[in-house]
Amino acid sequence: MEERQAVKSHKLVINNRKTSMLTGVLDVLAFDLNEILLETEQGMLMVKGTDMHVNRLNLEKGEVDLSGNIDSVAYSEIHSVGKRSEGFLNKLFR
Amino acid sequence: MEERQAVKSHKLVINNRKTSMLTGVLDVLAFDLNEILLETEQGMLMVKGTDMHVNRLNLEKGEVDLSGNIDSVAYSEIHSVGKRSEGFLNKLFR
Repeated sequence: MEERQAVKSHKLVINNRKTSMLTGVLDVLAFDLNEILLETEQGMLMVKGTDMHVNRLNLEKGEVDLSGNIDSVAYSEIHSVGKRSEGFLNKLFR
Repeated sequence: MEERQAVKSHKLVINNRKTSMLTGVLDVLAFDLNEILLETEQGMLMVKGTDMHVNRLNLEKGEVDLSGNIDSVAYSEIHSVGKRSEGFLNKLFR
């Protein structure tokens, strides 16, 4: 656990709104064609768009590759969702 | 104009929510500590956060470097603001 905490690096790259590469991803909490919710080293991250796909997912390395039509990405400070995930999501991102 | 259109590449990188590098930037339309509005090759881009600064701006190369506490980035399809900029901003991003 301690080695894990030492590397708190998170990077987000978006190319031409079409592809995205992320590092420092702890978990993928939910995804569908329009929304992808990730837990990162820097908080929760919601990616919104259309026709979105998770092309590569390697949580051991903390890496995720997405593609689709990306409209927005938004961070929130909360680091863990807990049990009330649906109400939580609605409160946070609507 | 034709050479310009050929290179429609736009890239956005965010490191640890603190720094951001952008390419394919056509113009910086507005910025203050909390919001930076850019025109990119892929549409308008609104960056929101706190304590934000434009550290480097080279429109000849289309490059912009930002720093601050980045909360979100959101694209819109509209490519030019025109004259009704204030009403336009409110409609788009609120």
